[in-house]
Amino acid sequence: MEIDFGKSDGLVPAVIQDDATGEVLMLGFMNAASYRETRRTGEVVFFSRSRNRLWKKGESSGHVLKVREVRVDCDADALLVRVNPVGPGVCHEGYRSCFFRSLDESGTPRMLAEQSFAPEAVYPGRPSGQARKDD
Amino acid sequence: MEIDFGKSDGLVPAVIQDDATGEVLMLGFMNAASYRETRRTGEVVFFSRSRNRLWKKGESSGHVLKVREVRVDCDADALLVRVNPVGPGVCHEGYRSCFFRSLDESGTPRMLAEQSFAPEAVYPGRPSGQARKDD
Repeated sequence: MEIDFGKSDGLVPAVIQDDATGEVLMLGFMNAASYRETRRTGEVVFFSRSRNRLWKKGESSGHVLKVREVRVDCDADALLVRVNPVGPGVCHEGYRSCFFRSLDESGTPRMLAEQSFAPEAVYPGRPSGQARKDD
Repeated sequence: MEIDFGKSDGLVPAVIQDDATGEVLMLGFMNAASYRETRRTGEVVFFSRSRNRLWKKGESSGHVLKVREVRVDCDADALLVRVNPVGPGVCHEGYRSCFFRSLDESGTPRMLAEQSFAPEAVYPGRPSGQARKDD
């Protein structure tokens, strides 16, 4: 079965879900090469749209995502990757999940979680608040 | 807080998660107008890339997605919509979730679920196997 990389400039969205808890941790994009690297290594490799290159999740932080299962949707243009996350959190802002805020109808954010680590300790070359999602 | 619709032709991916079970049900895209309609109506409205128009999930099937919470990721370019799904399943192929198959390293699919409804009964104008994801 072939993944359909043709609909969005060679990219498909990849939802990252904690295999143990069901928590949705983040969303990234994969192209064919990053998908191959993900399968070859057993750890999630995205394609960074801002840097235009493969981006191994955890390459700076060590917070890699160990692949437990890859699911594909009905028309094969989206992936659901169930993982065991290594480390205290996936988010470059210091949270377990990148989805740490809700938005109400008026657009007001509400915090849903507390930080699980200090990002400036994990991304030492980046001053507080200056780490990037794809660091 | 503003959602960043600027990175992908005005669209952001929206992960749909069952609020009761944590199951990831599907992934669609929203533009600003479909997001506004989602918030205004309390039911998920996507933007269909293939039809180039707003696509209310369940407009044919009745299987609407009632919004329980909208989460936004750290850089505001992806949404996680927690829903109560109405009906036996969200997938136009007759499954509870669109992610009803896994892929092994060689690309071989494996079924993870059985059909929860007969799609030809829900999409009566569409012969078996001819319904579309955005019907």
